[in-house]
Formats: sequence, C-alpha cells, structure tokens
Amino acid sequence: MPDSAGPANATRQEQHEALLRRTVAAIRPADAAAAAEAAEHQARLTKPAGSLGALEELSIQLSGLAGACPPPLPTPATLAIFAGDHGVHAEGVTPWPQEVTGQMVGNFLAGGAVVNAFARQAGISVTVVDVGVATPLPAAEGLRDARIRSGSANLATGPAMRRDEALAALAVGIELAGELVDGGAKALLTGDMGIANTTPAAVLVAAFTGALPMAVTGRGAGVDDATFDRKVDVVAHALRRHRPDRFDPVGVLATVGGLEHAALAGFILGAAARRTPVIVDGVIAASAALAAAALAPDAVAAMVAGHLSVEPGAAVALRHLGLTPLLDLGLRLGEGTGAALALPVVSAAVRVLHEVATFDAAGVTEK
Amino acid sequence: MPDSAGPANATRQEQHEALLRRTVAAIRPADAAAAAEAAEHQARLTKPAGSLGALEELSIQLSGLAGACPPPLPTPATLAIFAGDHGVHAEGVTPWPQEVTGQMVGNFLAGGAVVNAFARQAGISVTVVDVGVATPLPAAEGLRDARIRSGSANLATGPAMRRDEALAALAVGIELAGELVDGGAKALLTGDMGIANTTPAAVLVAAFTGALPMAVTGRGAGVDDATFDRKVDVVAHALRRHRPDRFDPVGVLATVGGLEHAALAGFILGAAARRTPVIVDGVIAASAALAAAALAPDAVAAMVAGHLSVEPGAAVALRHLGLTPLLDLGLRLGEGTGAALALPVVSAAVRVLHEVATFDAAGVTEK
Repeated sequence: MPDSAGPANATRQEQHEALLRRTVAAIRPADAAAAAEAAEHQARLTKPAGSLGALEELSIQLSGLAGACPPPLPTPATLAIFAGDHGVHAEGVTPWPQEVTGQMVGNFLAGGAVVNAFARQAGISVTVVDVGVATPLPAAEGLRDARIRSGSANLATGPAMRRDEALAALAVGIELAGELVDGGAKALLTGDMGIANTTPAAVLVAAFTGALPMAVTGRGAGVDDATFDRKVDVVAHALRRHRPDRFDPVGVLATVGGLEHAALAGFILGAAARRTPVIVDGVIAASAALAAAALAPDAVAAMVAGHLSVEPGAAVALRHLGLTPLLDLGLRLGEGTGAALALPVVSAAVRVLHEVATFDAAGVTEK
Repeated sequence: MPDSAGPANATRQEQHEALLRRTVAAIRPADAAAAAEAAEHQARLTKPAGSLGALEELSIQLSGLAGACPPPLPTPATLAIFAGDHGVHAEGVTPWPQEVTGQMVGNFLAGGAVVNAFARQAGISVTVVDVGVATPLPAAEGLRDARIRSGSANLATGPAMRRDEALAALAVGIELAGELVDGGAKALLTGDMGIANTTPAAVLVAAFTGALPMAVTGRGAGVDDATFDRKVDVVAHALRRHRPDRFDPVGVLATVGGLEHAALAGFILGAAARRTPVIVDGVIAASAALAAAALAPDAVAAMVAGHLSVEPGAAVALRHLGLTPLLDLGLRLGEGTGAALALPVVSAAVRVLHEVATFDAAGVTEK
C-alpha cells in the first residue's frame, strides 16, 4: 500500500495524536478513599467478612474507579464490536475464508449471532463498528462506518498498517467510548470480529509481555496441527522481523496489530478516561488492553476481565495486567460473548453495596 | 429427645416413605435423542464448533433433561432457602451464635441479605422455608412454616434426628419442588441458612464419598485454627460413632445430617422427578445432592453446579457427582448466592439453542 499521507492526513494525524494525549492525561489512579470506604462497608454487611470473594474485590475496584461508594450500577451497558480484516490471512493461519468477517457483521446486525443472544439476555445494547473489513458492506442501521482501510497489510511481509492509520483506529475507539458514556452507558463491553485476528493478538501479547511465541499462540477458531505450527512460525517471524518496541505502543499496534485491536485499545482508554468500567472479553481485547496499559498504566483500574478465554495469550495478557477473570467457561468465540456473560456478575457485585443490610440495620448478631 | 412416634406418626412416616418412593421412581435417565439433537444443532450454529465450551455441554444436558431441543428457558426461576439449626453447635464448631439463623430468616424476608440482592438482579423469586430453626419465628408473608423440630440434636453425642423426621424433611423439599413447578417455575435454585450447617455437610460428604475428614472440612463462615481443628475432630468422631451406611441414604441424613440438608435432598429429587433443572449452590446443597444421587442416580441429570464454593467439601462432592461448577468466584456465603449468580449463565446456554442463526440461515461460509 502506497503511503498517501499528504498535508490533510498530517493534520488528521496531529488531531488524533492530540486526542490520544488528552485521553491518556485524563486517566487517573483509583480513588483510594472511595475504595477504602467500600472495603469498610463490605465488613459491615450481613455476611461473613470476605465471603463474597472476587465480588468484594470488584466492588472495591469499581468504587475506586468511580470515586464513590457505592459506585453506579453498570447498567445500561453497551457492547461495541469492532470488525476488521487481516493481511496475515494470506499466510494460511486459519481455515476460515476472509469473507466470513463481513458475513458475521451481517449476522450481528440481524441479531443472529451468539453475542446478540447473550446481549439480549443481559439487556446490553450492541454497536457494530467497521474499522477495516476487507469486503464491501452495505450501509445498515446499527453499523458504524469507521473504515480506515479495507483490512490490514500482511504483518509477515511488512507493517500491518501505517502509524497514522493506527492512530486513526485508536481515535475511533476513544470517540465511540466517549459518545456512549455521554449517551448514558454506565459500562462498556469489548467485542471483536476479524478472521485471522488471533494471530496479530498473539504477536501483540508477545510484544508487550515478552512471552515466547509458543506460549501465546492458540488454535483460534479451530486450526489443525499443521496450521497451528505455521501460526507459531508467523508469530515468531513477525517478532524477529519487526522487533516491536513496547515503549512505543502506537508503533507496536501499527506494525504487528490489527485495526480492531487498535480501536479496542482506544475504546478501553476512552472508558478509563471517563472513569467507566470496561469489561474486557477474550484474547483480542486482552491484547488491546496491553497496548492501552502501555500507554496509560492507570487504565487498568477501569478494566474488568470478563472471562478466561481458551486462547493461551489471554491468560498471559491478564496475568501481565494483574487481572483475575470473572468467568472460566472454556469459551473461545470472541464477539464479546465472555464480556456479555460477565456483566450480571459485575452488576451483582455493585448491587451488594447498594442494597444489602448492615448487621446493625438488620438486627443480626455479629460473631 | 424422646421418640414420640405413635400410630399417627407412623402413618405420616408411611406417607412420606411412599412419596419418596414415587418420586425416586419418577426420575428417569436423560433423553439421549434430544441430547444428540442439541449436539448436532450446536454444530450448525454460526460459531466455531465447540467454541462455547461448558455452555454447549450444559445446553446438551438440559435438552436431555427436558426431552426436547431446545429445552425451555430456565425462567421464571425460584430459589428456596431452607433454614434449620444444629445441635452440633454445642461442640463449638463456629463462632456465630445460633440465634443468627432466625435473625437471617428475618433478613431474607425483609429483602436485606446478599441472596435477595442477587435474586432481584436475576429476576428470581425467593421462598423461605423453616424446616427446623431453633428460635421462635413470627408468621410472615413469604415464610413457609414447615418446622419439623426446633433444630437437630447434637450429632456428636447421638443421631441428629429420627428417621421419620428425616423423611418428613425430605417430603417438605419434594412437595415444595412440585408446587413450584406446578406454579410455573422452569428452574429451581437451592438456598440454605443454618449456623453450624457446614459441619453436618462435611460429615455427609465424607459419608457418601469416603473422603477423609480433613479433606471435606472447611472454615465455614469464618473459624480460627483452634475451632477448625475441633471441627475436624467432630467430623471424624461422628463418622466413627455413627458409621453411616451410604446404601441407606435416609439413615445417613437422619444420623449425621441436618433438617435443611434433608429438605434440600428432597427438593433436588422433586426437581429431577419433574425434569426441571435444579441449580445447586454451595457445600450444603452439594452434600444434599450426594444424598439425592444415592437415592436416585439419574437425578444427577437435573443438577447444575452453580459455583465452586471455597468450602473443600463442595469440590469433593461435585467431583463425586461428575459435575463441573459454572462459576468459581471464591464465594463461601451460602444462602443460594452462587446458584443465583449462575442462573444467567444457564439462561444464556439455553438461549443459544433458541435464538442463534445457523450457517445456512445467516449465509455465513463454513470453514
């Protein structure tokens, strides 16, 4: 792809850089006083101290994020599915044809995918964003056209995209997060669609954590042994070729990432800047979360790991971020399915601080 | 306690024995054809085969239970909290005073407990059943008075209750399950309240699985090291003294169980007899599920393990039953909290079979 960045593009790139800078600057540490208040309140509620395990920790985290105890309930919630295609598909890293990305976008818009069923179940609204699908998509209600290019370039033979394109994708995510919070969303959930997108995710996880290719590469949406070996080789080759520098997260996203990965990193940063919890889905979102944390370490305070994907890179990324996944159901579907399943657990954790009686109020004797 | 079983009691005991026999006889194996249909349908849906992990297995199990694919959604759902007290409290196995059982019943009825918050969150109705609280309870809306005796006897010094009392408690659970299903409940959830009830649960788990006292005894609602050591001794002593015979499950419940444990065993059997899923909460329910499975092995087909309690006996019991818990959040609260949190996951698993498009219908290319 020719580098067509002229004066107009340069101006846009500067705007995107400024947006990213402002967003990162707005991300602050958790409010320790609100977190401490939540911990003390948990101890006064009619239950044995500590008996709610991970939900108590989550309620404390979200109080610190909101700067208030109790923090707002995480509803209404919106799940954004960022869709993109990947030039690395040409390396034979997946048995699925590239056209499936666009077909699944149609399925999301028609409400027929698993994530739609889970979102209906939990009362979550769904927004679909085309940041870089390779095939033409007809305009449709519920589809946000934010296409930056028709799929990334092949990261095995060159950079996946230009730096200004990565910045543009980050801006798409930041802006959408802001709009959704302005529209009343109290929690954001990450979703993704992109045939072959577990390959850039694996490279991103290796780039940001230092993990070995074998430790971060999985079988994605189902690959046989030969394809798996090829995928590990592609990941290892990409790392050697691009030597991604984790102190330049935008550069890492540009050279070895994908358009939806960069947009998701922006989406997570946008949520953190608005002190709004963002439920991170599987390995694609976790790899994007690593980029977000590299740009703004305090963004981790806004992240809730929805579930532990079967993809090995997800566990590596979450451990690096210090996040404990809420669910572990053997999912490896993406789309935001694990995040959608986790929302009721997050709601329950916050609801405890709103609704449960104290020992004093309920007239229950303490031990 | 004197054995006051006269002719009237004998008649009631015969009625309860007949009810238990009829209930056990009504429990049938899963419908293999419906289960196979669910597995085939999962493979046609727009997602990689197997990518929904535990949810696919659950959807297949519940299709087999219902004898239909898709099975009904598990809503509306009702959670029944069976409350009882325990003579073994006198052995100093818990730091909580016995009066807390009755106080927490009041908290449930006022809607102030954690389980109430979780139930509201998931749209679950709650029924509270007094099967054997030690303290007097005023009549209240939402409280079912099914008290068999005011707390069990001390299993460290004699049997916890008479056989006819265990049968009466089983009948309470069976009858309530039937009423709730008749009233439209599509899923039942187990709840419990009873200070000291993790001690009889530990003895029950050891009795039915053969596990060692140390492997099934936990810290319940919070015990220090000295109390924990005493609790392990009480469990070991009870096993040596009563030598519970797992081929006589009613006898096991009577000698080393509790009133709510027996009622929960009946509740689970009642659900299974009506081919209705029952979400098993923590270690109290899991110990009751062992009794239910000893009476009717096919009852396991109706059981869904809501979560993995911190109490070690829960893991031992679930493994024995071949059940994989849906959630693992470090909970050790009881009340039905883990079951309530799991309901949305069960709903999501079933909803997939109802709502997700097939590759053909959605026009999505298969790999």
